[in-house]
Parts: sequence; structure tokens; C-alpha cells
Amino acid sequence: MEHLEVIKIGGKVIDQPGQLEKVLQAFAHIQGPKILIHGGGSKASEMERTLGLKPTMVDGRRITSSDALEVVTMVYAGLINKTIVAKLQSFGCNAIGLSGPDGNSILSSKRPAKPIDFGFVGDVEKVNTSFIDIQLKSGLSPVFSAITHDGNGQLLNTNADTMASVIAGAFSGLYNVRLTLAFEIEGVLDASGNVLTKIDESSFQKLVKNGTIKEGMIPKLTNAFDALKSGVKEVKLTSSDYLSNTTHLYTNVILN
Amino acid sequence: MEHLEVIKIGGKVIDQPGQLEKVLQAFAHIQGPKILIHGGGSKASEMERTLGLKPTMVDGRRITSSDALEVVTMVYAGLINKTIVAKLQSFGCNAIGLSGPDGNSILSSKRPAKPIDFGFVGDVEKVNTSFIDIQLKSGLSPVFSAITHDGNGQLLNTNADTMASVIAGAFSGLYNVRLTLAFEIEGVLDASGNVLTKIDESSFQKLVKNGTIKEGMIPKLTNAFDALKSGVKEVKLTSSDYLSNTTHLYTNVILN
Repeated sequence: MEHLEVIKIGGKVIDQPGQLEKVLQAFAHIQGPKILIHGGGSKASEMERTLGLKPTMVDGRRITSSDALEVVTMVYAGLINKTIVAKLQSFGCNAIGLSGPDGNSILSSKRPAKPIDFGFVGDVEKVNTSFIDIQLKSGLSPVFSAITHDGNGQLLNTNADTMASVIAGAFSGLYNVRLTLAFEIEGVLDASGNVLTKIDESSFQKLVKNGTIKEGMIPKLTNAFDALKSGVKEVKLTSSDYLSNTTHLYTNVILN
Repeated sequence: MEHLEVIKIGGKVIDQPGQLEKVLQAFAHIQGPKILIHGGGSKASEMERTLGLKPTMVDGRRITSSDALEVVTMVYAGLINKTIVAKLQSFGCNAIGLSGPDGNSILSSKRPAKPIDFGFVGDVEKVNTSFIDIQLKSGLSPVFSAITHDGNGQLLNTNADTMASVIAGAFSGLYNVRLTLAFEIEGVLDASGNVLTKIDESSFQKLVKNGTIKEGMIPKLTNAFDALKSGVKEVKLTSSDYLSNTTHLYTNVILN
């Protein structure tokens, strides 16, 4: 089977044009089929505040009112997605920006209002691999924003890590998939703040129990394990610097 | 040759969800290959004002500062494009939202700063028909926002009528193309305010000279004639109501 790179970038790198450019240059140089999924950075919250809305996060996830949905759709699917695609094109990478409704690529369902009502937030139901594979086979590199749809005309705000994990998993029957979740730090840290070379599920559970792994790192690692369980061959957690090779640290996530 | 429908919608229909829905339903029901190009409505100017910017138009075209470019990219390529695509998907139309950088579909160049500096405004240089045709041949209906790119990483704000005309023209070698430019009124009006059944280039020039045709109608008709000169088989100017068949008035634009 052919190799497929699935890379998720997010956090501060989106807000720093110079840093983002370096990462996109590195992505553009990867040979073979590849998919990029991007988060939103701080721009959506900034825009919410400018418009007199109040960004509200629970467990690092945005409560998405109908006004907030307009903002994230503008910022993620519009500004950030098209800025990234235009940059990649200038680096010789034939990118195509996609959100869930495009080609019905990512279908999601609105998260139930209980226990917490997140508003217009979607959980991925289905990845349209045949549509996405047409793009890959045509030599295009899909660039996904985490805006999806429910098939009934409703856009939904989706977690970009989860989207990356589910997309990687969906392609594991068609390609040898490597998933890289890039974020601010170089990997999963142990109690002394050193980057773990690898982490399996039982050590993950121990480190959660003793409080070493907490907050946003828990869903991120859960997404990583979910991808492996769906058949993804290799999952790495690392900083976006890793992509441009300025650092070699990363954590390999393994099942056991 | 197969038939291809190229339809541009713009103006107030974008601002009226009920009206927009009717038009999109009509578009969804068109059989065979089809492309939709949409304008922006009043949302971008609203957003500019909310953000403390001052929308400035010259000859009906927006002076696009770097801040205004962010706004139109958010509103056109993000909010409006994805809202339309999600609606079309719910009506059973397999739409794919595209802007110029996506698949390098529409390459433009920044308009020279003289005689008027429009800022980040682009004039279309090249339509990537082979990329767009892959989508059409896969049964997808491209939905274009009028945000394009220059190939060097710069996004540019482009006139949606011109984009529709140039896209229609570019496909005239591959399909029998019909271009419909839909806007607020039912067609080109004569001096008494009646819709002309048809208009050719010499009567156009006469009506411009005597002041019957003026302002935004002049570039719109120029785009229509340009499309015909590029080989488009049929060009109609009509209101968006025409698409949902509630009215039968329209102006046929013909060369002579």
C-alpha cells in the first residue's frame, strides 16, 4: 500500500505568519499523498470579542452559539484555510482547501445538549474517502478546516485533532497512514518535563492517574490512540518545528 | 458537446436566506454539469463597519485594503461559500466550494495602482479548466467565491461577474456553455423601464450613449459580451427569481 501523511497543525503556529510559513514550506516538500488539517489559533476568539461576543471554552472546547459559528466559519473555513492554501500553492504544492460540506467530505452530527450544551458543535460521523481520494489521486493535497456539516444544511464546529484522527483512521484501509499531531510542545512530557520517546495506553492511563498528563493533553492522546485502533500505522505527537526539521524530539504513540 | 450551465448569483439574494434557499433549490435541480459563482451581498460591508473599517466603493467596486481583504476572504470564501455548499448538499446537489487558490483554479494578477488604486483587487489571468473539469466529471458542482490568488501567496478580491464570464469563456472549448448572470432586476431595461427581450452590441452602445444603460449595468453587459466573444453559446441577464421559474422575463445578450 502507498504511504499517506496526515498532519494536523494548530495553536500558536497559526497566529505567527513567519512560523506558519516555515511549517507550510516543510509540508509542501513532503513527497507523495498528504493531507493537512488546521486548527484556528486565537483569531476566532479575537474576532468574537471584536464583535461583542464572549468566547467561552469548556475543557478547551468552544461553546459555539449561532453567532460564534458564523465567526469560526469565517475565520477557519475562510481566512485561515485560504491563506494556507494560497501559501502552499506559492510553494509549489497543489493544495485544495476543504471544509466538511465540500464534496460532502466530512459529515458530522450535532453533539447532544447534555451533559454540556456546546451549541453548534459536531462529532464526525463519516469521512467521504472516495471523494477525498479523487483529489489525492489527481495529485492534490487536501487542506481541511474543522468546519463540518450535518447533511441537512447545518454547519458545525468540530475539533481539529479529532478530525485529523478520524480522517487518518478512515484512510487506513487504503493507505499506510502516518498521523502527526503537531502543537506547541515537542511531545508528551514526563513528570520531570522531559519529552517521552514513546507512550502506550497503559502508561498513558498511569500518567493521567498521577496527574502528569492532564487537561487538553488527555483528549489529544485519546485521539491518537483512537487513530491507532482504526488501523493508522504510526502516530506522532510533536511540535510544528518538527515538520521543518529544526528539532528531532517527538513522542511516538503506540498501543502496547 | 455536453451542455454546461454557469450561473452567477449576487446582490440582495445573498442577504435573504429564504430567497437564497429557493434559488439554491432551483440550482440543485438542474441536471448535468453546472457551476455556481456567488457575489457577497451586504455582509462584507456590514462586517467592515463593525470592525471600524470604512467600506469604499468606486464604480461599484470595493477598494480592498489589506484589512478589507481579510474581511472579504472571511465573508465570501468562508461564511457565504460554506453556507451555500451546505444548503446545496442538503438539497442533494454534490457541491464543492472553491476559491481561486484551491487547486490553483483561478489565477489573477493584482490590478495596477493607476489610474485608481483598488488595493488587493485581482484581474483573472487563467482558469484551470483541467482541475475544475475533474470535479465536474466526478459529478461535483463547483461553487466559486470571487476570492482568487496571484500564485505568489497573495489572495485577491475579484469581481464575481467577471469571474463568471471568464470561467464560462474558458469552458467554451469543452462544453456548450450557457451563462446566466442573475441580479436584482429581470433583465436590461429600456427607456420606459421594460425588460428588453434581447440586446446586441450595437444597441448596447446606443443605449449607453443616450443614458438608458448606466452605472453597474455597463460592466455587467461588457462581461456578457466578453463571454460571447470567448465562445459561450448563450448569455442571459435576469433576476434570480428566473432560476426558480417564478418569472419568465430575461434579456438574451447576443453579439449581433
